[in-house]
Amino acid sequence: MKKKNQCISKAACGEYSFMGRIWVEGKDGAFLGYGRVLLLGRIRQYGSITEAARSLDMSYRHAWELVESMNNQATSPLVETTTGGKGGGGTRLTADGERAVRLFQEFHDEFQNFLRKKSKQIKFQGE
Amino acid sequence: MKKKNQCISKAACGEYSFMGRIWVEGKDGAFLGYGRVLLLGRIRQYGSITEAARSLDMSYRHAWELVESMNNQATSPLVETTTGGKGGGGTRLTADGERAVRLFQEFHDEFQNFLRKKSKQIKFQGE
Repeated sequence: MKKKNQCISKAACGEYSFMGRIWVEGKDGAFLGYGRVLLLGRIRQYGSITEAARSLDMSYRHAWELVESMNNQATSPLVETTTGGKGGGGTRLTADGERAVRLFQEFHDEFQNFLRKKSKQIKFQGE
Repeated sequence: MKKKNQCISKAACGEYSFMGRIWVEGKDGAFLGYGRVLLLGRIRQYGSITEAARSLDMSYRHAWELVESMNNQATSPLVETTTGGKGGGGTRLTADGERAVRLFQEFHDEFQNFLRKKSKQIKFQGE
């Protein structure tokens, strides 16, 4: 067998990227994904869906729909809003919301490790 | 700490799916992905871009553009077409094309294993 080029693609000679996306689906479709978990993190940070949405250049309506979708598919809500009271109410993650963020981030980190490992192993090189 | 529900989502109680998508990017964007590799497999099967495209309900133009994109980003073409000659010419995968299909399928299979493993490990359950 004749000697082949060492790379089948310019990308494979160091100019390529192994890419990917992960998400979790529930009964109604998307349940958790990178964007949704980013939103949860901002809700925790700002204590407000309005502020969280603004920080992500997202409409309030879209952010609210994402929160509704997550809450509806969860056994108990991931985000809760209290109205009135001394502090004027606010929005925060529940314990289940905190756990969802943490577990998804671990899943995401492990996936990035998987992609890094594969990009080193798979060289598309001649045999 | 009070005992929580064992599942934070109905999906997490067995009704959810861990989903994902992977692809390889080169200098011009997408280089190899599940759809492109499926197309390569059909080109191998049918010996024709036209027939391969038809089998995937894809326009000939789109299939041709995908092949061009892969060939242009590879060091040497993954698909080659011969015209005329005894058999009237034909389209086939080069050795580099065969290798690209095999390596991407391995990458894809290992990713599916990763998702299966994670879907068993990550339970979104109460602590």
